[in-house]
Formats: sequence, structure tokens, C-alpha cells
Amino acid sequence: MSDRLIYLPLGGAGEIGMNAYVYGYGREGKERLIIVDLGVTFGDMDTSPGIDLIMADASWLEQNASRVEAIFITHAHEDHIGALAYLWPKIKAPIYARPFTARLGQLKLDEGGIHTEINVVAPRPDTIEAGPFNVQFVPISHSIPESSALVIDTPAGRVVHTGDFKLDGNPIVGEPFDAVMWDEISKENGGVHVLTCDSTNIFTHLPGRSESTLIQPLTELIALQDGMIVATTFASNVARLKTLADAGVAAGRSVCLLGRSMKKMVQAAQETGVLTDFPPVVQPEDAAEIPRENLMLIVTGSQGERRAASAQLSRGRYLGLELKEGDSFLFSSKTIPGNEIGVIRIMNAFSEMGVEVITERGGLYHVSGHANRPDLEAVHDLLRPKMLVPMHGEHRHLREHMKLALSKGIASEVATNGTMLDLTGDAPKIVEYIETGRSYVDGTVLIGAMDGVVRDRIRMALNGHVLVTLIIDEDGKPLGDPWVEVKGLPPQGRSGAPLVETLETELAEALDRTSRKIMANDDKLDELMRRGVRTASVEEIGKKPEVTVVVSRLLDE
Amino acid sequence: MSDRLIYLPLGGAGEIGMNAYVYGYGREGKERLIIVDLGVTFGDMDTSPGIDLIMADASWLEQNASRVEAIFITHAHEDHIGALAYLWPKIKAPIYARPFTARLGQLKLDEGGIHTEINVVAPRPDTIEAGPFNVQFVPISHSIPESSALVIDTPAGRVVHTGDFKLDGNPIVGEPFDAVMWDEISKENGGVHVLTCDSTNIFTHLPGRSESTLIQPLTELIALQDGMIVATTFASNVARLKTLADAGVAAGRSVCLLGRSMKKMVQAAQETGVLTDFPPVVQPEDAAEIPRENLMLIVTGSQGERRAASAQLSRGRYLGLELKEGDSFLFSSKTIPGNEIGVIRIMNAFSEMGVEVITERGGLYHVSGHANRPDLEAVHDLLRPKMLVPMHGEHRHLREHMKLALSKGIASEVATNGTMLDLTGDAPKIVEYIETGRSYVDGTVLIGAMDGVVRDRIRMALNGHVLVTLIIDEDGKPLGDPWVEVKGLPPQGRSGAPLVETLETELAEALDRTSRKIMANDDKLDELMRRGVRTASVEEIGKKPEVTVVVSRLLDE
Repeated sequence: MSDRLIYLPLGGAGEIGMNAYVYGYGREGKERLIIVDLGVTFGDMDTSPGIDLIMADASWLEQNASRVEAIFITHAHEDHIGALAYLWPKIKAPIYARPFTARLGQLKLDEGGIHTEINVVAPRPDTIEAGPFNVQFVPISHSIPESSALVIDTPAGRVVHTGDFKLDGNPIVGEPFDAVMWDEISKENGGVHVLTCDSTNIFTHLPGRSESTLIQPLTELIALQDGMIVATTFASNVARLKTLADAGVAAGRSVCLLGRSMKKMVQAAQETGVLTDFPPVVQPEDAAEIPRENLMLIVTGSQGERRAASAQLSRGRYLGLELKEGDSFLFSSKTIPGNEIGVIRIMNAFSEMGVEVITERGGLYHVSGHANRPDLEAVHDLLRPKMLVPMHGEHRHLREHMKLALSKGIASEVATNGTMLDLTGDAPKIVEYIETGRSYVDGTVLIGAMDGVVRDRIRMALNGHVLVTLIIDEDGKPLGDPWVEVKGLPPQGRSGAPLVETLETELAEALDRTSRKIMANDDKLDELMRRGVRTASVEEIGKKPEVTVVVSRLLDE
Repeated sequence: MSDRLIYLPLGGAGEIGMNAYVYGYGREGKERLIIVDLGVTFGDMDTSPGIDLIMADASWLEQNASRVEAIFITHAHEDHIGALAYLWPKIKAPIYARPFTARLGQLKLDEGGIHTEINVVAPRPDTIEAGPFNVQFVPISHSIPESSALVIDTPAGRVVHTGDFKLDGNPIVGEPFDAVMWDEISKENGGVHVLTCDSTNIFTHLPGRSESTLIQPLTELIALQDGMIVATTFASNVARLKTLADAGVAAGRSVCLLGRSMKKMVQAAQETGVLTDFPPVVQPEDAAEIPRENLMLIVTGSQGERRAASAQLSRGRYLGLELKEGDSFLFSSKTIPGNEIGVIRIMNAFSEMGVEVITERGGLYHVSGHANRPDLEAVHDLLRPKMLVPMHGEHRHLREHMKLALSKGIASEVATNGTMLDLTGDAPKIVEYIETGRSYVDGTVLIGAMDGVVRDRIRMALNGHVLVTLIIDEDGKPLGDPWVEVKGLPPQGRSGAPLVETLETELAEALDRTSRKIMANDDKLDELMRRGVRTASVEEIGKKPEVTVVVSRLLDE
């Protein structure tokens, strides 16, 4: 049996978010492994109410922890680094990242009480040896500083894992896209065997635009405003923060950063030397003293998050600051699908205050951090890989990216989370499906997505909850009538009587009619009560609630 | 005291959906009233889990039912007609609508067991007298047949209520926009006193396009497909159904309509003479026998609705029909904000089947049914109203429409739901705020949005639910330990012990420590248990669940 090179996505393949990819090399089942990224995605009310964070199910990694040589983090976006503190304890392999990423990752580990130090690495030509893998971090532009592709040399050939990226010749903060270096990479070590490539923007047919194209429109826009100007974007987009702040200063305004992550990002970028010339900022407590026409706020919450600064401001005074008629609010951001309602809620709240809301207007005040279709093609052409594995995207993105590769004569295959590819030969080959899924952070507990916890929550939310308590005396007879409490149900229905009373009467009658045998059997009694509640509820309110029955039996002493 | 003309939106003003507008004329507080539209909006998991339909709170209408002369329905979209069966019983005024709208409304009333006949009316010059109002239905184009504006003549002057509309010279089904007639309307009776005008597309700066522009691209697209082609759009967009079906037939395909509302709409349109030349269709049971390259399905579910035909097909076989590699699925529709996740889910499911998903592609395969900003301006210019009341839109749409009107020298005011305007003079004047809100259809019960039912559901969904039952004996002492059941919570937390056991132990200890006085007081005992659960839960799982406590006291006999 010969050695093989495998690829196994556990998150990010078949979805946008929650990236977690595994590469392995060695004998089947004995491959030495490396992990690229351990990210999260966020819960939503539709599918995961009450859940704060979602990440890859790490069971497979935990079972194979002894085979893991290293964890590499390409950049500090939550969907690439957010699961580190939750999943590292199951794996316990050394973590590698560049300084800014490492700084933010270390904060996460420290906050989570995880005692390990991230290894801070320099970019190519520095190389990390991890078992059979030699890994280089290669600067590539994206919407956060220090994003990196990984060049992973293996005995089976060179793998280029792009991470999230765009082609930006002038990204304002961080290194521009370096075509010469990528050309070198394409030629060394026999060329690129596998390109594992970002797919999120495959359906966008125009070439991507540089972060630097925003300087002029943003500067002009901000200069035009009369009242206070508030701008929101992702806190991690440090280049955008700089452009916004520079534009504010150019318009004679003091700049104030609002929101915990804004300050954290700027501080981490300054301390790691990524950001050297951010203008001085004022503190929120001082900002309230500055005339509004001389003030600019840069705030968190571009996605309408309820607890972020933008939502707080849309509800009224926040940290002594308040928007009013004549002020302006700029979304220097794009709304991620699923967040529309939250963003629109904020827009309307500002509209009620008389605040002008300015949106990205077709790209004038925002550019994407991902490579569009022509940019992806440019990378294919530059690297000329033998095979292409579409990575980071929903199924439709991965499939489209595969089709594009195939149309150019590059071998390709769609591998969604849990699909193991053998990349040893001339084309990707599906060799195994790993049982995987998602883990949820609920409060402080990590639970499985399929554990039923969330299913029960959704059911209570849709159907309401009826509680029945019943006491059975020493003789096996009901002591009084069943007692009913309801939560999340209409107080009364069709009969006009209180729902609780209707249900209690119905259950008391059902008990009257039932046999001693059923009375003696907890399961059957439970079923009798449950059925009674559901039948009466359908009749009364047209719904079948969730039901919990508690039977207490008094014992002979 | 003199007579006045009032306007009172109860739904649709400050939101998109749920339209319900009131006009009144007479002495203050004694105005005779007419209602324009009684629509619904749909619940969502974020804000109204388990709720099927949402409509205007009709309390004010119910209290003033004796003053209501008539109800006019402008068109048969759910957000204009959907509340009829729920709210008519509270008002009991005669209902007027044109034939197609009346047919669909009557179906709703009949299904709801409401015994009243909608009055079927002909368009202008026919006039309905309703107290001090003379009302004409004026054909105007939209995305459903027979949409109408209302020309409402009052002693204070002429009101034009546009309803939902667009300017379409060739709407395929129904009457084209008739500029000559609108010019007449602008000149009769002293001109237009008030224009109450659709605002939904005020932020779209390009002129709207005609439904007829889709014929060529759709025909070309459908002719190009090799496998089965499935197209989805709103069932009520009968013109689109016709264009799609004609394109299918032109490509040599048999056409099959899938989904209850597709058939209902086409049937109603044919029976009322609105639609005369729809091609023959095959039934689903026969469609499965037709070679897939000769078949076209037109299906419900353009918004990703879980129970509609498109979602069913995305999950597998439906009514004997199944999509596979090489088939195509066309969204001849736009995704309404809030529905993105559901639509994307379907796209990815089709992608997994190898089905090509085709979207509207910037308008090639879909046009909006609403007037864009330049069209709105054209209507302002055509009708030259003394004042403009922006109607149907979120606050930001209404405000922008008001600003546009003011910039053209037309008096205007934003009036959101519950805001009463006096329209008697030269400018709208806010005269009163009516206490209003939303009613929810939950199962078969109409509840108030603020009744707390939905709030409890959301809390259970976010926090889980703990039930504590406790029996107190005749001597006022606990009979055994408290019994705990949980729903929607992790089975265990930080200690590793079952959560239920941890909570039971905690509560038993709290009871041990407590005084006889507290034991004797139900409220204090409830509070003690509740606090015990919450404190222990925060410690154990990092969450504060909802808690229901049932204390049963055994009585001395």
C-alpha cells in the first residue's frame, strides 16, 4: 500500500463560514494530518435559536488527534479562527499564524482559559515543517490584514490553499497581490499539483475592485455631510477603517471608534506593526463634547447585530452619543444574506430620527474582499494547477467553480464537508465520507446540532408548551384534577373559556373514563394526558402544542 | 365645527405588506369612513414564531364599525386582501372589488365560513356611492390582473389612492397604463386634492420596465434548455405565467402547473375573463409520462416557502415528478428581503442534484410590479396633486417619497400606521395618533402581537424551559425532593452530571435551608425555586432558562 495525499473539509465546503480543512499524507488511515483554519459561523432564529456559535463537529479530529501535526490559521476572520478556543483542547497540536492573526487568536485562547501559545511565523520564504508537510504563509490580499494563502509542499506535490483572497494591487493596509511571487510559486517543485481555491464570489462576473478605489468617493461623501457622520463596516477591515478615518480627518472631523471589536482590531493592528499611520482618535466620553459637524463615528454593527453600536445608536442614546435630524449614517458594507431584516430595521429607525442613511450604492462605498470570477480565472491561469478543489462556498458555488475548472481542462471535484478526496494522482478522487456535522456553543456548553436540544426549542417556539402535573394517591387514584400550565399559547380559544380550564376539564374527564390499568402505568398515563391536551388544543386553538406531563405517585408509608 | 377629510393608515404605512387604509369625511369623531384594502403579512421565526398570518389590529375599526360605509379592495394580493375573512366580521360593511379580485376574495370568505357576498363592480366611469364618498375603480398595471387605483371624490376634493402600481404600456394581461384617462382624472372636479401613492420602489432610480420585455429573453432561454425546465414565480402574476407557458409551448413543451395557488389563480383569471388565451396544460399525474425534454413545469414557491412546490421538488420526488442532472430551474422572481436563506437553501439542493439554477440575472427574467422613482415622478407630474401622502412602504420609503414630493413643491407628510392626517386644507396635518398594532393568527385564534404569547415562545426558543414540580405535604413540608424536567437544554454541563440531577440537588438544598414562612408562601416558594434554577444553570451551562414552577399542596382531609 502506497502513501497518499488526502483532503477532508470539515467546515466551509457546502456553506459560507465555519472553515476547517484537513490535509493528510501517508498510508491510508495512518496519514499525518494538518488542519487549515478552525472557524465559526453564527446561529440564527430559524435553525438554531439560542445558539451563539456554530462550528465543525470535531469528533473525527478528536479521534485522530495523535495524527495531527499542526494547525495553520490563514487569517483572523471569525469564520477561520473563531473555533480555536473550543476545538483546540480536543486536538492539542501546535498552532501557527502570522503576528496580527496570532495576536487575535491568542486573545481568544486566553479568554477561553486555554493554555497554549500560538507560534508566530514570518511569511515565505520561512517554512514550517509539519510531518511530511512543508508549509509557507504567502501574503495575499483580503478584507483583513495579513491574510495568507498557504503553499503546502508534500511528497505528492505542491498544494496551494488560497484561503479567502482577492487580487488587490493596492490594499491600503498590508501587502499588495504579488504576481511575480505567485509566478515563482507556480514554477517551483514541479509546479502546482492542487489548487484549493476560495469560491464565494464565483457568480460575480465583473473583475474585483481594489480597496483603494474607495478613497475618493468616501472622502468626497464625508466632506459633503453637514451633521454628525457615522460609518459602519466590519471591524476587522482595518484598511477600510483607515480610509474612513482619513476621510473624516480630511473633512476636519475628530474620529471616534465605537464598539469593542473596533478598538480591539485597531489596537492589534497597531501593536503588530500592520497599521502604522491611523489618525488619532477621541474617546466616546470626549466625543459627546465635540460639535456634531466636527465629529465622525466609526462603529460596529454593519450586519444589524442587535447588541452592536449601530443598533444601539438606532435605538437612542449610546455612551452619551445620539443621532438626530441632519446626521448621516453610512453602511460601508454589504449585507450578508440572512441579515437583511436586521439591517433594514436599523435603516428605518434612523429614518424615523431624520438621519440620512447612505448605503454602498452598487459598490461606490464598499468593495468585496473575495476574488470574483475573472480574478479566479486569472489565478487559475497564473498557477496552472493539475487539479482544482473548489473551497469555501455553498454547494452551488463549489459546483460552478468545478465547472469553470473543468471547462479549462483542469481536473476538479466538488467535496463538501465530510467528503475525503485522494489527491495523489492526476485527478481528485472521492475515497470516503466521514460522519461529521456541526457543533453548537449554547451558553458555555458544546452540544451536537442533532442532539435534539435545538429541535425542542424550535418546537416550543412554533407550537407553545403545555405542562400537565398529576398526583396519584396511594390507592392509584388521582388526587384532585390534573393541573395545567401553558407557556406561549393564546389565553383562550374558540369556546371563549380560558384555555387552561378547558384543558383541565378535558383531562379530568379523560382520567375519569380510563381504566385502573392505564392509571397504574406511567407511560400510558403520560400518553393519555398528552393525547388529551393535543386533541383539545386542536379543537380549541387549532394548534398541537408540545406537552410535558409530570406524574407524581404518593407512596404508602 | 366644520367637516373634515381624514386619512388613517392601520397597516402598510411603515412596512411593506398588511395594507389597510381608512379615509373619513364629516365632523370630527363622527366622520363616515371607508376602508381601502385589508391585507396580511407573514410571520417569521425571528419575531413571530408559530404565527401564520399578521394583520392590522382592528380594534379601532371595530369600535367605529357603525361609521364604516364600505370596504374597497384594490387587488387580490395577500397583502391587500388576505385579512378579509378575519377582519370583516368585526366591521360588517359592504365589500367592493372588480371581478377577479372579488372571485378570490369570495373564496377566502367562503373558506373562512363568513357569509357575505362581495359586490362585483365595473371600472370607471361606474361609481360607488359610499356615504360622502364617490368611488371609482381605475385600471392600473401591477403584477396581478385587474389592479386598480381608486378615485375617491369627497366634498373636500378628489383623492387618488394608487394602490400598488407600475406604469406598463403592455402588461400582457389586463389593461395598459392609460395616460389619457389619467390626464382626464387630473382635470375633473377641480383636480387632484390628494395623491396617496405607492412608495415601495422609491429607491430604484431606473425607470420600470414592461412585463412584455420578458417575452423574448424568456422564450430564448427556455428554447435553449435540454432537460426538463421548471420555472417559479408568484402564482398571482398571471401575465408571467402566460409568458412562461407561451415560451414553453413555443419550445415544443407540454406545460404543467404545480402548486395549489397556481391552479387557483389561472382558473379565477379564466373564469372571470381576464385570461383568455392560456395554453392548454397537462395534469401532474400525466406530466410524469412526458419525456423530460418536452416538459415544462411552472411551480409555486419563488420565495423558498418550505411547503410550496419548488421546495418539495428540491427535496426529491413530488407528485411523481423529480428533477435530475441536466434539468434547469428558473427563478422568474426576485427574492423578498428576509426570504434569502430559504431561497438559497433550494438553490443548493438543486445544485446537489446537478440541476442548473437560473436567477433573474439583473432583470432579464423578471420585472418589478411597482413604480420606480422616475415612474412615481411621472405620476406626480401627470396628476399635479395639491398634496401627496406616501403610502405602502417602510419608514425610509415613505420619508424619501415625502422628500421627493416636497422638492417638487407638493405638500407632504409621513404618516405611519396609527397616524391620522387631516387632509382638508392645503397640506396634510397630523391630528391624532390612534393606538394600534398588529394581530396574529395563531392556529385558529386571533391574538394581539403584544399579548406576551409570542414573547414567551421566543424566550423558550432562546433560553430553553425548566419545569419544577414540588409537592408540599399536610404539615407544610416537602414531600420528597423537587422534580425537574427540562426541554430545549443541554443534557449536561460543566460538572458532567446530568443537568436535571444537578438542578434537583440544588433545589433540594435550597428547600432544606429555607424557612417555614417561605415554605408556606406559594409566591416566595416559586421565586426560591426559580432563582435556584437560574443560578445553578448559569453556573452549569452558562444560560438562564425560562422556569415554570408547579407547587402542589396536599390538604388535611
